[in-house]
Amino acid sequence: MRNIKLLIEYDGTNYVGWQRQENGKSIQGEIESVLQRILQERVNVIGAGRTDAGVHARGQVANFRTETKRSSQEMLGAFNALLPEDIVIHEIEQVPLEFHARYSARERRYSYLLTKTPTALQRQHSWYVKYELEIDLMKRAAEAITGTHDFESFCKANSDVEHYRCTVTSASWNEEGTLLQLTISADRFLHGMVRALVGTMVDVGRGYISFDEFLRIFEKKNRTEAGMAAPAKGLVLEAVMY
Amino acid sequence: MRNIKLLIEYDGTNYVGWQRQENGKSIQGEIESVLQRILQERVNVIGAGRTDAGVHARGQVANFRTETKRSSQEMLGAFNALLPEDIVIHEIEQVPLEFHARYSARERRYSYLLTKTPTALQRQHSWYVKYELEIDLMKRAAEAITGTHDFESFCKANSDVEHYRCTVTSASWNEEGTLLQLTISADRFLHGMVRALVGTMVDVGRGYISFDEFLRIFEKKNRTEAGMAAPAKGLVLEAVMY
Repeated sequence: MRNIKLLIEYDGTNYVGWQRQENGKSIQGEIESVLQRILQERVNVIGAGRTDAGVHARGQVANFRTETKRSSQEMLGAFNALLPEDIVIHEIEQVPLEFHARYSARERRYSYLLTKTPTALQRQHSWYVKYELEIDLMKRAAEAITGTHDFESFCKANSDVEHYRCTVTSASWNEEGTLLQLTISADRFLHGMVRALVGTMVDVGRGYISFDEFLRIFEKKNRTEAGMAAPAKGLVLEAVMY
Repeated sequence: MRNIKLLIEYDGTNYVGWQRQENGKSIQGEIESVLQRILQERVNVIGAGRTDAGVHARGQVANFRTETKRSSQEMLGAFNALLPEDIVIHEIEQVPLEFHARYSARERRYSYLLTKTPTALQRQHSWYVKYELEIDLMKRAAEAITGTHDFESFCKANSDVEHYRCTVTSASWNEEGTLLQLTISADRFLHGMVRALVGTMVDVGRGYISFDEFLRIFEKKNRTEAGMAAPAKGLVLEAVMY
């Protein structure tokens, strides 16, 4: 038995999300079906992050166990040859049997891209915000979420988790021309957390809520207190660290 | 009668090109049909560059004549509201009646994006080249085409032009991680010129032809002497200068 680690990039536009589901094509389902065709055995692919419908990844990590004797290089070529062009495996390596893409992860990094003007070329990978934004306030908000906090107010209801504490190791907004990108790293992310944070930070930036109100949302521990979720298409799972 | 100038961005993936054609949706056709619906008059939109099927634009310029009394701001909002999301008008301004998007243009700038690894997220906006490339040779080739030359060997056959002389004001390859981008400016571009140049420069970079052979292609004045055209999807009309 071997344990194989995959580094995966995908465009989530045409998928119901990472996880296999009844209602449409999933990233996990596409990858499993290609692996099964090539390896001729049942394969269960475990992803580090279960990205939602429309969310992208530049650095998703997954693992699966297999009896195959094929080399990593051989598998890489064969898998990519059969995968649709919006899913690309960049690296394949054998890892110790106890490696688990999800549970072994120490830190994950996401990015979220806003545009200040409508864009044709990046329309599937960014969120166009029509409001004037006070970037300095959004930068302050990003600073404020750094550290260990209870993010229940930024977590989808009915999430099956034991607690809502996450340690955000870094969070910052960078401006470049008409683009505005959040990069955020944490030991764990709750369901819908980045999109809820981005939606709420935009509320701060456009002056819909004050910076102090933003801080108070954390104490409410209730998702309805935070802003609307930012659209899925601006979100990218950039990297998973072990 | 007013003359209106448009600054347009589009994703060419789903179009037969800029120019109105019988065989499918064109950028020009989509824009004209929206303008006609809103202005309630016949509109002829003239583009600065007739980009081919699959080619994109961040800075296409076009103009049209109209009897409308609507303000530029009003038109901008109305046009974008009806245009498909892969075509965005960024600016509208009134210009002198003699302004002609194509004939008044002094210089055009294109970019071409290569990737050294397959990419899911940029698959529709780049060309993945699987060969090892010697970048320094490609940079020398870009330098060599700068200046005034006869580009007949890099022009699609049966192009209806009086001569093949173009003055390339700048051409350079820039490397950033796994991406490699050509930026090229010239007073005019022949049909298929950038894609033929990129395809041939890649032949130089991968060692399929030598740098000297590259230079000799110019003297042959025959399209079949140059390399294959690089795919449309990596090409972007960046800007038109007047």
